Amino acid sequence: MNPKYEELMEHVEKTEALKAAIVLFDWDTETLAPPQAAELTARMIGSLSAQYFDATVNGRMRELLAALKDAEDLSEAQAAVVRKLNKDRENMEKIPPEEYREFSELQARSTSVWARAKQNDDFESFVPVLKKIVDFSRRFAGYRRKEGQSLYDTMLDDYEEGFTKEVLDSFFLLLKEKIVPLLKKVAQKNDTIDVSPLRQSFDIGRQEAFCRFLAGYVGFDFERGVLAESEHPFTTNLHNHDVRITNHYYENAPENAIFSVIHESGHGIYEMNVSDDLTQTPVGGGASCGMHESQSRLMENMIGRSQAFWEPVYPKLQETFPEQLAGLSLSDFCKMINKAQPGLIRTEADELTYCLHVMIRYEIEKDLIDGDLRVEDLPAAWSQKYEEYLGVKPQNDREGVLQDIHWSQGSIGYFPSYALGNAFAAQIYHAMEQEIDVDGALRSGDLTPVTDWLKEKVHRFGGMRRTKQLLRDISGEDFNPRYYIDYLTKKFTEIYEL
Amino acid sequence: MNPKYEELMEHVEKTEALKAAIVLFDWDTETLAPPQAAELTARMIGSLSAQYFDATVNGRMRELLAALKDAEDLSEAQAAVVRKLNKDRENMEKIPPEEYREFSELQARSTSVWARAKQNDDFESFVPVLKKIVDFSRRFAGYRRKEGQSLYDTMLDDYEEGFTKEVLDSFFLLLKEKIVPLLKKVAQKNDTIDVSPLRQSFDIGRQEAFCRFLAGYVGFDFERGVLAESEHPFTTNLHNHDVRITNHYYENAPENAIFSVIHESGHGIYEMNVSDDLTQTPVGGGASCGMHESQSRLMENMIGRSQAFWEPVYPKLQETFPEQLAGLSLSDFCKMINKAQPGLIRTEADELTYCLHVMIRYEIEKDLIDGDLRVEDLPAAWSQKYEEYLGVKPQNDREGVLQDIHWSQGSIGYFPSYALGNAFAAQIYHAMEQEIDVDGALRSGDLTPVTDWLKEKVHRFGGMRRTKQLLRDISGEDFNPRYYIDYLTKKFTEIYEL
Repeated sequence: MNPKYEELMEHVEKTEALKAAIVLFDWDTETLAPPQAAELTARMIGSLSAQYFDATVNGRMRELLAALKDAEDLSEAQAAVVRKLNKDRENMEKIPPEEYREFSELQARSTSVWARAKQNDDFESFVPVLKKIVDFSRRFAGYRRKEGQSLYDTMLDDYEEGFTKEVLDSFFLLLKEKIVPLLKKVAQKNDTIDVSPLRQSFDIGRQEAFCRFLAGYVGFDFERGVLAESEHPFTTNLHNHDVRITNHYYENAPENAIFSVIHESGHGIYEMNVSDDLTQTPVGGGASCGMHESQSRLMENMIGRSQAFWEPVYPKLQETFPEQLAGLSLSDFCKMINKAQPGLIRTEADELTYCLHVMIRYEIEKDLIDGDLRVEDLPAAWSQKYEEYLGVKPQNDREGVLQDIHWSQGSIGYFPSYALGNAFAAQIYHAMEQEIDVDGALRSGDLTPVTDWLKEKVHRFGGMRRTKQLLRDISGEDFNPRYYIDYLTKKFTEIYEL
Repeated sequence: MNPKYEELMEHVEKTEALKAAIVLFDWDTETLAPPQAAELTARMIGSLSAQYFDATVNGRMRELLAALKDAEDLSEAQAAVVRKLNKDRENMEKIPPEEYREFSELQARSTSVWARAKQNDDFESFVPVLKKIVDFSRRFAGYRRKEGQSLYDTMLDDYEEGFTKEVLDSFFLLLKEKIVPLLKKVAQKNDTIDVSPLRQSFDIGRQEAFCRFLAGYVGFDFERGVLAESEHPFTTNLHNHDVRITNHYYENAPENAIFSVIHESGHGIYEMNVSDDLTQTPVGGGASCGMHESQSRLMENMIGRSQAFWEPVYPKLQETFPEQLAGLSLSDFCKMINKAQPGLIRTEADELTYCLHVMIRYEIEKDLIDGDLRVEDLPAAWSQKYEEYLGVKPQNDREGVLQDIHWSQGSIGYFPSYALGNAFAAQIYHAMEQEIDVDGALRSGDLTPVTDWLKEKVHRFGGMRRTKQLLRDISGEDFNPRYYIDYLTKKFTEIYEL
């Protein structure tokens, strides 16, 4: 092995351990830590982040990375590690350490401020924190942006390399042109699907047990993973042998937890399948946010909302809730879980309206970062856009601007990846269907062919190969949102018999 | 503030954050982490420990600590921090960093090896790990010991400053002289207490709920604390606003979980009551292992096993388990929870036999470290001593030498603190009874006078004052095991009407 690379790995071991510690603190804060712990714990996370920063930007790291940048004796994985570290380091070096540290401390505290604000429907209490987050984000993007790059493009690039406002503007335009008319047709026939059977009372304990079964069924390995509860479902991991997902349960809407757990399992399986020689390195995670989201949405929607998937599984759900579901047929159930109906909550949105939720956040983020919108005015802007695009209006900020955790975590520029993820998923799913009998696998009750294919084509590469390359290798072409449009059009035309 | 002390605090913030991360990883490993995570997580803990080591023994820390050693402008808390750090640093500096790191990695892995070995009753699979732990412990003590100090005394001093083999030998001798004859008398009348009502089936879910209530009742604050489940109950903390206890439940022995949770709450309350200016510093924990144990045992035994305590609480327990307990009187219940009966499991032992369990471990540890006993021969030595002192013989290693987690964590020299803790508790309890009406408080159902007194006399000082000083300040005299002997004699003479 290249001796400089070997030395680099000694540093990486330290930074990866610090990163894992921060991940664990975050997980713990979201799932378990006592209410009053946040303030003092934030100090510790702040210190660990500062140590992570120091360990990443120290002089010896810089020398090693510079020397390794064009080394020709590196494996593909090693070259990817060097590339990733160089990018991270360049980004971090531009940020003054005190500011980075201050921001990390803020981040550690802000999610609990957000959680309380959401609980109390008190947007005002979140305003000072969110203002600081926006300020930091703008300032950091200002330090880091390339010549001529806009602040928001700088942020977008963190989550999805090469996907700019320009790309996204045209992507969302296409969705508006094709999906909005489709949604209108669907809306006219919406009364044909009555979801009231799913609005009965479904015992939370049984929901939990069924969701645990579902996670395992789609391939989440409990020998290497954990399922817990949190306000907002999420996935995190310490390495490929410790992957954690959370879920959230509603008594009168079991499909919520069901599709959340399939969604998070999709993320989780990705992390579990990253190959052993990549885990615990800087390219041990997924290729990008959008690629990660493609794996969760593919599992949740293309797989999880198909009738073929439910053929072997629905009887088990009926057994779990005999009183509520014994009289409900499989095909009616499948219509219900695919009902397209404009609503207020992104994570509960159907496939058809989902991208509009994301579009609203995208437009708001752009305005927030470009300085056209003040934090104080967010609730009004939110309401106005929901009314305009989806025809619904939040009655309070809990179901409005406070619904998502992302901004409180300092993640601005992340949301668009959710829409891209859906489009990637459709492109990948189309390729998969050319190669294996997906429906046959689902009907047989054994998803291994599907998860094996995903592992082979996507998961095992972790962050070693870029999203654009993976898409090209899988589908033989660049990112093409047409697959997504076609998928939605075909699916909802059939369901609603348009 | 002394500017050197201020600079020292910047270093301390780093080391405390690293320590907290290690604590959190340990907690997570014991309570939640997936089965296959241990190996890769151990690497991370190893790296964090190495970073902790580096941050503690670096040159600037040494300079600052040397300069501050005799500084006269430090507060009592500041001086205690400097003293503690100097002691830790001196101990650590003597250990070669690679060995320290190797040991930390071993520690991180070894508890899960132990847990599996215990589960499978497979001592042999634990032997190689335990051998390494013993080797490391001996080697480290060899590096660290003072002129003429024995290896085992060096280890004892880590947990209980100033308590040597000499002190412990005479302490255990006194117990043997006084308690063994008392136990013999008790044993003759043992049939008078029938605990079969507690051997019925007690629903685990209800046990959990009642134990949660009990923890809060004795003063554990769930705003600043967490109760979870693990193989062996324990207490840990990140700071005084995040204290964590665990419990373990047995269907046919509810008193086990009940007294474990009171015990761990005693530890937890101690940590919660450490004053805010000490938390997140090196003296933010308790004064010593024995002092910590005194707080858990005082709560568990002196308080928790008294009839006065159960007067207001027993009706609630009867309500929780009406089928099992409706016909059982308070006084009979109180006799059952105080039944003295030689058994195999330390954590389930009654007050009278408890110290004999500790004595066995003490004798074994001495032999193990002095080289008179090989790891392979532990099960035999264990059996022989249990038969000799307690008249019982383990049928397997699960209920024998594999029962305790301590050695797998690398804690050798810790066990004696359990016996000392009981003796400290009796000395402190005696002083408390001189100053407040303890029984009155217990009968009233409000334990605040008790916990306030403990906070005032013990808890708030954290690790700032030494155990010996605390004992002197509280009782006006040095450590005196007579209080413990008198307490046990009076209590069991009454219960068994001797």
